[in-house]
Amino acid sequence: MPKPADLLFVNALVLTMDEEMHQFEPGAVAVRGDSILAVGSEAEIRLLYSGSQIIDCGGKVLMPGLVNAHTHVPMTLLRGLADDLRLDVWLMGYMMPVEREFVSPEFVRLGTQLACAELIRTGVTCFADMYYFEEDVAKATAEAGLRAVCSQTVLKFPTPDAASYEDSLAAARDFIQRWKGHALITPSVAPHAPYTCTPEILRATAQLAAEFDVPLHTHIAETSLEVENMRRENGMPVVPYVKKQGLFDAKVLAAHCVHIDEGEMRTLMHAGAGVAHNPSSNLKLASGFAPVQKMLDLGLNVGIGTDGAASNNDLDMFEEIRLTAFIAKAVCNDPTVVPAATALSMATRLGARALHLGPITGSLEPGKRADLILVDISPLHNSPRFRRDHENPYAQLVYAAKATDVSDVMVNGKWLMQDRKLLTFNETELVAAANEYARKIDIFLIQREQSVFSKLVALGGSAEEESFEVQVKVKLDDSARVLEALKKPEIEILRKKHYHQHDAYFTFADPVQGWLRYREDEIIDDKEQITGVRGRLTLIGPSREGDFAHNVLLSRIRYFAPATNSLRFYREYFKPSNETLIDKDRLRWLVRYKDEEFFINLDRVDTPELGCYLEIKSRTWSRHDAEDKAQWTTELILLLGGSLERTVTLDYVEIANEK
Amino acid sequence: MPKPADLLFVNALVLTMDEEMHQFEPGAVAVRGDSILAVGSEAEIRLLYSGSQIIDCGGKVLMPGLVNAHTHVPMTLLRGLADDLRLDVWLMGYMMPVEREFVSPEFVRLGTQLACAELIRTGVTCFADMYYFEEDVAKATAEAGLRAVCSQTVLKFPTPDAASYEDSLAAARDFIQRWKGHALITPSVAPHAPYTCTPEILRATAQLAAEFDVPLHTHIAETSLEVENMRRENGMPVVPYVKKQGLFDAKVLAAHCVHIDEGEMRTLMHAGAGVAHNPSSNLKLASGFAPVQKMLDLGLNVGIGTDGAASNNDLDMFEEIRLTAFIAKAVCNDPTVVPAATALSMATRLGARALHLGPITGSLEPGKRADLILVDISPLHNSPRFRRDHENPYAQLVYAAKATDVSDVMVNGKWLMQDRKLLTFNETELVAAANEYARKIDIFLIQREQSVFSKLVALGGSAEEESFEVQVKVKLDDSARVLEALKKPEIEILRKKHYHQHDAYFTFADPVQGWLRYREDEIIDDKEQITGVRGRLTLIGPSREGDFAHNVLLSRIRYFAPATNSLRFYREYFKPSNETLIDKDRLRWLVRYKDEEFFINLDRVDTPELGCYLEIKSRTWSRHDAEDKAQWTTELILLLGGSLERTVTLDYVEIANEK
Repeated sequence: MPKPADLLFVNALVLTMDEEMHQFEPGAVAVRGDSILAVGSEAEIRLLYSGSQIIDCGGKVLMPGLVNAHTHVPMTLLRGLADDLRLDVWLMGYMMPVEREFVSPEFVRLGTQLACAELIRTGVTCFADMYYFEEDVAKATAEAGLRAVCSQTVLKFPTPDAASYEDSLAAARDFIQRWKGHALITPSVAPHAPYTCTPEILRATAQLAAEFDVPLHTHIAETSLEVENMRRENGMPVVPYVKKQGLFDAKVLAAHCVHIDEGEMRTLMHAGAGVAHNPSSNLKLASGFAPVQKMLDLGLNVGIGTDGAASNNDLDMFEEIRLTAFIAKAVCNDPTVVPAATALSMATRLGARALHLGPITGSLEPGKRADLILVDISPLHNSPRFRRDHENPYAQLVYAAKATDVSDVMVNGKWLMQDRKLLTFNETELVAAANEYARKIDIFLIQREQSVFSKLVALGGSAEEESFEVQVKVKLDDSARVLEALKKPEIEILRKKHYHQHDAYFTFADPVQGWLRYREDEIIDDKEQITGVRGRLTLIGPSREGDFAHNVLLSRIRYFAPATNSLRFYREYFKPSNETLIDKDRLRWLVRYKDEEFFINLDRVDTPELGCYLEIKSRTWSRHDAEDKAQWTTELILLLGGSLERTVTLDYVEIANEK
Repeated sequence: MPKPADLLFVNALVLTMDEEMHQFEPGAVAVRGDSILAVGSEAEIRLLYSGSQIIDCGGKVLMPGLVNAHTHVPMTLLRGLADDLRLDVWLMGYMMPVEREFVSPEFVRLGTQLACAELIRTGVTCFADMYYFEEDVAKATAEAGLRAVCSQTVLKFPTPDAASYEDSLAAARDFIQRWKGHALITPSVAPHAPYTCTPEILRATAQLAAEFDVPLHTHIAETSLEVENMRRENGMPVVPYVKKQGLFDAKVLAAHCVHIDEGEMRTLMHAGAGVAHNPSSNLKLASGFAPVQKMLDLGLNVGIGTDGAASNNDLDMFEEIRLTAFIAKAVCNDPTVVPAATALSMATRLGARALHLGPITGSLEPGKRADLILVDISPLHNSPRFRRDHENPYAQLVYAAKATDVSDVMVNGKWLMQDRKLLTFNETELVAAANEYARKIDIFLIQREQSVFSKLVALGGSAEEESFEVQVKVKLDDSARVLEALKKPEIEILRKKHYHQHDAYFTFADPVQGWLRYREDEIIDDKEQITGVRGRLTLIGPSREGDFAHNVLLSRIRYFAPATNSLRFYREYFKPSNETLIDKDRLRWLVRYKDEEFFINLDRVDTPELGCYLEIKSRTWSRHDAEDKAQWTTELILLLGGSLERTVTLDYVEIANEK
């Protein structure tokens, strides 16, 4: 007497993707409720089970749905926003400013929907996400019907969803408590990366994940720079460092792992951690080639992920699977490594294990959830079909199938796509809503791009100084006279500094933008040793507020920002039309003269060779006060031996460019 | 008064892919006959031209069709036949035997049709092919309506379409004469590769191509092995070598160029040669990473190709374009190299130039042929659309578009696909015919796989020896006695040799297969120096034909093949279940005794240490004669001091395995 099933899938090439890689053709799968009852040959399953509904698969491949082991689903809304840029320019110049401005529960919800629709279309039934407002990701994913590990990001910086890391940690705890036990969603916490988290964050998130027995999702050793910094700052590679912070008290899902050594792989292995390999992202951002073959050899559960659509730029797992096989071969100089069946296992069974969902999904086995897809391997671009070898269907799926060959998708026993029709989404509405966001983001960026000032502000950390500055500059033949004159009793010296200043002046096609100066100050001690370096960005407005007699200028003071990135970064970010380099030696005194403070700079401009200048500056808060100061700066020039005939109004960059 | 045009494409995002990367949105293109009349903004074109037919592109991208710069179209019929194998195993173990058996004009025609249908579907309007029976490739391509450079292969080995290279050279000349001037087909000659051609072939093909002013298509520096061999044998890298043979007298299209240095790039540049980069193939076969960025920097015309479907396994140029950008970034450790616009230029304008078809196709410019495609960049997986930056549409096409987003294809002013419907093919029939070939090839390979003998024969060059062999072997304590006894007058020594023999015996799960022995003979001279090495494969049957007194055996002699490949190759090709290594020192005399010739082997087996043996063998053509010889071998043993009590019937491998 056959046992009852809800659904019998028949007439399929069943690829179970189980440990023994069982195949059945014609094969069948019996489903009851949310789970798989049985898998086997069609004859056997038909004998043992009677289905309320029989689904004829028409000879297509019936296999477990793909597992996208690492992504940031809401970032589909930023797909194609900015490409072919350096990681820092891309991240700090575009992604983070746009995220600061736009990421909200509504953004996250729409981005998740757009992603889920794409994931379903391309045969993904389960994914691991990491973003902000993760509860909204979880809600939208559950409504879409997909399975996911949803990881609430915790960072040491303020994020779009939390002013402090304590806030996001509390939000993560609430989120995990509310969603733990959900049929589709596994809530999780994501300390973003070792270099964006404090040791306290790593420890606290690990404890939180361990307390609720949920996975912990993080980025590990994505770039060689991360590893270099880690070694310099902490004297060890990334994996031992996070181990020291107790991260492996939790069930870890480690994304990337591009730059880890064999010892670190063993640590991950012993910790039971899963790895998410992201080939497209690692190539596109030039992060490097992950040692996939070695990790697999050691027995690590290495899944495959797309990363966010902003760095990929799609969520096409078929592409990632193929790349995984391709790259491993080229890197190992051996075409036999990561054969098709292995690559496909990584995207199914091993991926599910990497997400710590191995018992639930990742293969067609009795007792697992009914997360499955139908793929047509008979279209023109995948013909002919060879049947000689057990490996043939894996090779067809990995090397020639397209994501668009997926026709049907079921998760947890429920249909999400049938005959290429999405059942939980209105695609036209989704695309229209996404384009509306893109329009707003375009406007935001266009406005920003129009002004160097806005781009400076968008970087964060810049400060506007609202004061005026009175300044005068005079060419000298003999700087020794100034040093002598500074001993005069009328002048009280409050402070003295010595710098080597390396300035890069960016100019722009539109002169209204002014100059942007990137300055590196090397601080020099009495023994002529460099004791420190600081970087500073200054936006110099083009207009003068007024001038006084003897070329004494009144200018509005500028916008400052600490220059935490490299000159190269700013060059690529601000895209100046021209760049002038000025190197000079500066002795700088803060003095008191007539009860007012003045800065006296004695400059020797070495690149280009412009000679010596005396510069006197003073800040002021009012135009009236400025007039007095203009008078006193003139007196100071004479006192210090300068000639009022030789004053110059031009900035060094202007003098350099006139030469 | 507007000028007349046949077609006006309007309401498109026109990407001209011309030198200045002009874009028009909404843009328009006017076509008359086979050519483009004008390209510009819709307003301008509508003002200047009146079209008999107006085609509303619905906001899709209108761009030049893609150029697949290197492929072997008929090999689509071998797609998925054998994957994840080493290059030599794949090529010599599978591709070449199957090609020898199946490649015919009919095969080539069907394979070309299957490929053309896939190429059209994926937006390719022009390709460069290299195969056998190239005239049939040309016919099928012209019928399909695609543009192609069709290159007739010339090789030093016999090919499926020619018994000798003179034949294929003559065929190439005929083919070029007949097809020169065809609207779609540019006939061409393809010396396969420097290592598969003689210098004469390289010279003759270059002269032929120069005579008719047609391109010459070849493989250059695909693997590091090729370069190593070239350096060892000719003392120079590949490009200088082919230059020396006069190859650059012709307009060269050089496929792969994975392992070339900057000097070689300059040579290619000065010779006006085009390069075809094949990223999927180079990854999948682990050939390496081509120095694409360097070649582009030098100004070389680098196109992109899919290579044959047997090593890819599809003809999807969208995948190749994306990979080109991805890999260059990762290899250069710089995400800004080969940006999207550059990658897309390689697949259009630069590709056409690499094929020496620059004036005809590769961009949307007045006067060029109307080879164009429509691509929908608005589907879900490519949403949203950002419009801020001139680079945005290239990034959408390169990083997120799928080949299946191509909806319409026109070549030479004729529609080949409209609204995703192929107009020159019946896909169902094509797929069915391809599967029928696959069925036959499967049967051929299954039969071959069942027998080590068939696999040996499939490699080519093996010879069956139909004689019997009489042999006896005896264990010795003292080999010096034999050397002394050989001086006896009854024995006339005809020849003496000294070898170190390194044998690998493969055994198989099915004992009926016998043993396959891979032997390397090191030939030793009087000064104990190795003067030569030869490799030989011998298939040793399991059965004995009979035995005589004193363990004298009669055996059927074996199948021989020169072992031109490495032990590793044979191991992976024959997949033995077990392998035994035997090293021995052999002194071998050819002697005359009683008017018959005998071989006397004095062996010292060193690995494993089995000691010394005397072996006497003689070939014979009849069973009757064998009986006499059996008698005389017994006499010889006694004459040489051996003991008839110590004869052994086992082969060394059996003795070794018993130990």
